[in-house]
Amino acid sequence: MIDIVHDLIAWKRDGHELDAARMHEFVTGVVEGWVAPYQASALLMAIVLRGLSEAETIALATELVNSGRRYDLSAVGRPVLDKHSSGGVGDKLTLVVGPLVAAAGGCFGKMSGRGLGHTGGTLDKLESIPGFRVSLSHGELVRQLERIGLAVVGLSPRGVPADHLLYSLRDVTATVDEPGLIAASMMSKKIAGGSSAVVLDLKVGSGAFMSDLDQAEELGRLCRAIGAAAGLPTTTLMTAMDEPLGTAVGNRLEVEEAWSVLTGEGPQDVRELSLLLAAEALVLGGGGELVTARERVEAALSDGRAAEYFDRWVHVQGGRWRPGEYQRLARGEVRAEQAGYVVRCDARLVGRAAQLAGAGRQRAEDMVEPAAGALLARKVGDQVETGELLGSVLARDGDRRESARAVLAGAFTVAPGPPPPAALVLDRRGPKES
Amino acid sequence: MIDIVHDLIAWKRDGHELDAARMHEFVTGVVEGWVAPYQASALLMAIVLRGLSEAETIALATELVNSGRRYDLSAVGRPVLDKHSSGGVGDKLTLVVGPLVAAAGGCFGKMSGRGLGHTGGTLDKLESIPGFRVSLSHGELVRQLERIGLAVVGLSPRGVPADHLLYSLRDVTATVDEPGLIAASMMSKKIAGGSSAVVLDLKVGSGAFMSDLDQAEELGRLCRAIGAAAGLPTTTLMTAMDEPLGTAVGNRLEVEEAWSVLTGEGPQDVRELSLLLAAEALVLGGGGELVTARERVEAALSDGRAAEYFDRWVHVQGGRWRPGEYQRLARGEVRAEQAGYVVRCDARLVGRAAQLAGAGRQRAEDMVEPAAGALLARKVGDQVETGELLGSVLARDGDRRESARAVLAGAFTVAPGPPPPAALVLDRRGPKES
Repeated sequence: MIDIVHDLIAWKRDGHELDAARMHEFVTGVVEGWVAPYQASALLMAIVLRGLSEAETIALATELVNSGRRYDLSAVGRPVLDKHSSGGVGDKLTLVVGPLVAAAGGCFGKMSGRGLGHTGGTLDKLESIPGFRVSLSHGELVRQLERIGLAVVGLSPRGVPADHLLYSLRDVTATVDEPGLIAASMMSKKIAGGSSAVVLDLKVGSGAFMSDLDQAEELGRLCRAIGAAAGLPTTTLMTAMDEPLGTAVGNRLEVEEAWSVLTGEGPQDVRELSLLLAAEALVLGGGGELVTARERVEAALSDGRAAEYFDRWVHVQGGRWRPGEYQRLARGEVRAEQAGYVVRCDARLVGRAAQLAGAGRQRAEDMVEPAAGALLARKVGDQVETGELLGSVLARDGDRRESARAVLAGAFTVAPGPPPPAALVLDRRGPKES
Repeated sequence: MIDIVHDLIAWKRDGHELDAARMHEFVTGVVEGWVAPYQASALLMAIVLRGLSEAETIALATELVNSGRRYDLSAVGRPVLDKHSSGGVGDKLTLVVGPLVAAAGGCFGKMSGRGLGHTGGTLDKLESIPGFRVSLSHGELVRQLERIGLAVVGLSPRGVPADHLLYSLRDVTATVDEPGLIAASMMSKKIAGGSSAVVLDLKVGSGAFMSDLDQAEELGRLCRAIGAAAGLPTTTLMTAMDEPLGTAVGNRLEVEEAWSVLTGEGPQDVRELSLLLAAEALVLGGGGELVTARERVEAALSDGRAAEYFDRWVHVQGGRWRPGEYQRLARGEVRAEQAGYVVRCDARLVGRAAQLAGAGRQRAEDMVEPAAGALLARKVGDQVETGELLGSVLARDGDRRESARAVLAGAFTVAPGPPPPAALVLDRRGPKES
C-alpha cells in the first residue's frame, strides 16, 4: 500500500516543497535505479510546472554532487579560479580568460563538459589544435596547476553521475527549462570540479538558451545561492548574446581569434569581456578591488605575458600550435544586397550555419570538423555598401557549404539607418549579492 | 533537430491544446513504442497539471478506443444497456440492476474490468459463485443476450490496449487524478464494450476516489460529452459513498445481499439505487418516461421475475448457486462502547477492513477469498445501546481477522445525538444535459 516513489511524485505534483530528505530519495533512487525513468520524468515535469524554490535547488545540487566525487585541488596550494558560460555562439572567452588570469598571477583551472550546442564547446575548440590532450589524471592536473597556474580538462559524465542521468532524461522529455534544474545541473559540475571560486557568464539573447533577462537573473540568483551553500563563491554576469561574440564561429577559427585578442588585436567585444571576466576571477581569488584586478589583467595583455601563457599552456597539454597554421577550407560568401547598416546578425542562425558547415554536433557521437565554421566581416552597427562582404562560411563539402551559406545569409539584416546602441554587459552580481 | 515527441510534450507543458492529430501521435506512439514510457509519463504529468479540455478528452477517448476493437453487439437486435460505477465499498448494484432490467423487458450487457480497489470488482463477486464463467466468446455473449437479455463478462486488458498501457503508467507516476484522463479511460472501455447506452453511477464521498462533488460533476460532464461524440448515450448519477452501500462488503457476502434485495428484502439503499439505475437504463433503451420505467422495474422486483432472471443468468453462465450455501468464516465482532446514534461508518475503513480480511486485492495477481469481508449490523442513523453489535469481519485467518476487526472498529463513530439526514442521490443528468 505504501509507495515511496508514488508519494514523492504526488507531493511535488500537489505543489509541496521537496525537502532535503525527499530530494535525497529522488536522486538516490534515480542513481540506484529504484526510481524508474518514467517516474523520474513525471517528477521532473511536476518540477518544471511547479518550479523549484531556492532551498529545493540547493538540496538538488547537493544531492547531484554527492552522487559522485568532489575533486580535491587543495594540493595546488592557492585558489583555483574557474569561469563558466551558459553557452553562446562564438564564445571563445575561456581561451583568453585562462591565460589572462594566469599571467596576472592567478591560478585558472576549469573542468569542462562536451558541447552539444550549435558549435563545439571549449574542449572541441582546444582539440582543434593537433595533439592537445583534454584528459589529464588528477595528479597531472594538480601538477600543471602548480607549475603554470593554468589548465582546462574534460569532466567525465561519471563525475556527477546523477546529473548525467537526469540530464539525458530532461533532454528527451521537454523538462530542461526550469531555472532551479538548470542552476543545480550547472553548479553541481562546478562544485564537483574542485575549484575555489567561479565566475558565471550567463548569456541572454536570441543566440542563448535564455532570451529573457528576468529568467537569467533568477538563474544567476540560484547559482549564487548554491555556490554560497557549497563554499564556492560565485559571481554572475549577464551578457548579451543577440549577435555572436567576435567574428569567428567554429573551433579552430575561434582559437585563432582568441590568439589575435591575446596579441593585442581581435574584436573589441571578445577583448572587453575577457578582461572583465579575468578581473572578476582574480577578485574572487583574493585579488582585491575590481579596478586593481582590471589593471593587472590589462597589463598582462598589453605586455605579451598572456600570449606567452597561452603558448605554454597549449604546449604543456601536448598541443602543436602555430598561429595560422591550419588547413583552410573553401568559402561560401554572403554579400550585402543593399547599402546601409547591419542592424541584425542573428547569433542563433550564425551558429546554425557554422553547425551545418561542420563545426558542431547534432548528436553526442558526431565528430566536429576543426576548421569549419563561419567568419563575420561585419558586425551589428557596421556600415556596408551594396555587394560588400557580410560574412562567409567554411566547409569541406560543397553541399554543406551551400546550405550553411543560405542560413548565414538569413542571419543578416541591413537597414538604411544605424541600430540603437546595445550594452554588452547587462548585469553583474557578486557572491554575497541576492 | 526535429523531435516530434519532445515537441508534443513541450506543447502541453506550455499550456497548449492537444488537437486530434497530436492526440493521435501520442496514443499511437505509446502503443507502437516510439513514445518511450518516460516521455509518456512526462506528458501525463503535464496533462494532470495543465488539465484536459472537453475536446482533448474526447480526442483521447477516441484514440484509446481506436487502439483496440469496438465490440459489435448489433446482432443482438435491440439496445444493449450497460451500467458502470466509478467504484465504491459494498457496491453490488450490478447484480441487482442486471436482473431488474432484463426482467422489465430490457437487455442488460456489461463488460467489466478486474477490481483493484479495497474490495473485489463485479467479476470477483460473480466468481464467488462456484462455476461462474466470466470469459465468454463474442458469439456466446451475443447468443446469451439474445436468449435471456442478460450477461456480464470480463473485458480483456487487450480490449483497449492503449488504456491498459497508459493506466499502468499513471498508476505508478501519480498521474491518475485528472478528470479528463479518468473520463477517457472509463468511457473508452464502455465504448469498446459495444453497448448501446450506459448509466454511470459516479460515487462521491470518503469511500470513493472522488470526495468532491464539483470534481464528480466535471467527470460526469466529460463522460456524457465523450458518450455523445461516440454515439453512446450516457446518463450520469452522482451518489453518496460516505458509508458503504448496504450491510455486506465482500464478494460472496454481497451476492447474498443482492439476492435478498431481489427477493424483496435487503437494505433500503441498495434496493432504492438499484431500482433507480435500472429505470434509467430502460429509459436510455427507449423505455419512455422515467416514471413508467420505474413502475416496470418495481413490478419486476415485487412479482419475483427479477429473482428468476438472476437464477437463470447465473445458471446460463455456469454458476452453481443456492442462496446461503457457502462456507461461513469465523467472525470478529465490533460492539458499541457507548449508547447513542451511529453518526459515521467510514466506507474507506470498512473497505480496508474487508480487504485485510481477504476480500480484496493489494496487487493485480492476488487471489481473493470469496467468503471473507465485513457485515454491518448498524448503519449511519441507527440507534445503538452500549455493547450492541455494530458490525463484524469474516476471515479465514485469525491474525487477519484481528487486524481487520481493529480497522472496522475505527470506522464507526457513536454520538449522543442523531446525524443530519443525508441524500443518497446527489445529482442526475441525462445524455443531452451539459
